[in-house]
Amino acid sequence: MIWVEIKPGERIDDLQRDGLRIIQSTKGFRFGTDAVLLSGFANVKPDETVLDIGTGNGVIPLLLSAKSRARRIVGLEIQSEMAELARRNVRLNGLEERIEIVEGDLRESRRFLGDERFDVVVSNPPYIKAKGGIPNPNGALAIARHELYCTLEDVIAACSRSVRYRGRVAIVYRPSRLVDLLTEMRRHSLEPKRLRMVQKDRGSKPTLILVEAVKGGGAELDVMPPLVIYDDDGNYTEEVRSIYYDNTSLLGKDLT
Amino acid sequence: MIWVEIKPGERIDDLQRDGLRIIQSTKGFRFGTDAVLLSGFANVKPDETVLDIGTGNGVIPLLLSAKSRARRIVGLEIQSEMAELARRNVRLNGLEERIEIVEGDLRESRRFLGDERFDVVVSNPPYIKAKGGIPNPNGALAIARHELYCTLEDVIAACSRSVRYRGRVAIVYRPSRLVDLLTEMRRHSLEPKRLRMVQKDRGSKPTLILVEAVKGGGAELDVMPPLVIYDDDGNYTEEVRSIYYDNTSLLGKDLT
Repeated sequence: MIWVEIKPGERIDDLQRDGLRIIQSTKGFRFGTDAVLLSGFANVKPDETVLDIGTGNGVIPLLLSAKSRARRIVGLEIQSEMAELARRNVRLNGLEERIEIVEGDLRESRRFLGDERFDVVVSNPPYIKAKGGIPNPNGALAIARHELYCTLEDVIAACSRSVRYRGRVAIVYRPSRLVDLLTEMRRHSLEPKRLRMVQKDRGSKPTLILVEAVKGGGAELDVMPPLVIYDDDGNYTEEVRSIYYDNTSLLGKDLT
Repeated sequence: MIWVEIKPGERIDDLQRDGLRIIQSTKGFRFGTDAVLLSGFANVKPDETVLDIGTGNGVIPLLLSAKSRARRIVGLEIQSEMAELARRNVRLNGLEERIEIVEGDLRESRRFLGDERFDVVVSNPPYIKAKGGIPNPNGALAIARHELYCTLEDVIAACSRSVRYRGRVAIVYRPSRLVDLLTEMRRHSLEPKRLRMVQKDRGSKPTLILVEAVKGGGAELDVMPPLVIYDDDGNYTEEVRSIYYDNTSLLGKDLT
């Protein structure tokens, strides 16, 4: 029996994978498609170490723990309340041996995470440029979306510092800022090697981009077919269903 | 009656647009989907001036003359025989008043084309990195595909020199070199504003990329839905049919 506190304004959701559950705020930041697709996209091999920069409620470490055989997953979070929530989520799922939540500022990651210690670094960075003031009354949500505590460059610099030579960095971001993402990656010795656009329907514009870079990799990008969320009947496509629910198939893919 | 010489090893093809015809070598360089799609993608307004860098047999100026109301289109070509062929193609179609073919090296374009003289610059640059020696016995074909006479950076630098402030640069290139293209553009003050991936079927990887940049533009990229060549029955999709054959619809689009 595990005892974990659920605070007012929080609820427990089923992650529909390995019996995982997650405590989330009902009004503030809740995980979205971007986190799930990033977890599906990231390539994590058995016994590797993973860092999630800006982990929020810890959803990505939870999903990666189910998908991969990663030895250790660290979630870095700047907001105290979110870090505390992420820790409760780790306990709720009995994953204290594999997942550790670290509270801190990614711009100073060197001080508490060292250099080049991780095989894989993932992040779902804020994508809206800050224009003075917090635009959303809910702080946690605003911080997740707007460049308030850090810019894209800060995030990419922290990814590059934290990942080992030849290690992988996987990012989910917005198409409107694709050029920013790719140029920042290359500038920080993270060569983009795999790109996937995500679009709602087969005829629509992409709404998300997934990019995997290799530290010190050579210049040659593999652009994958677009990931389409809904089929012509409005149901999840087979591929998205397998990312959301079919944990084992993803696991199998990672073992190669 | 127009008299134009057709040399041994050449044939005349129908461009299926405005009655345009083109003389092409039967064995060497022939225009492909990339040239047609670039002409469809480029945004040319009435009375604008256009430069095509590395025009080859002149196919892009011919297609742009039909699609747009451009006042003047210049095709720049380094190879004497190709420039001479392009000139015959201009004469064959009676387009001497709108299209001019200039023989010269794009790296020295300033000497004979001046600076910032064009509203729009287009190019279909070679995309395979040169690794010493001409890899294809047919020189013209090798030069069109391999970075023998110029690198991507040379082409982008020439585009940036030639286009006016706030003018547009449209490029067709390969997905594997997307990062190179976007970073070179930004480095040369050409901000990518519109990106379209081209894929054969709806489930396949992109084979081409189309990028439009604006000189001095702000950072915000519009990623369009992918352009799919064949429908599920193996026929051209409606959109590709309209790019290939329905000249008026494209023209109408450009008038806005």
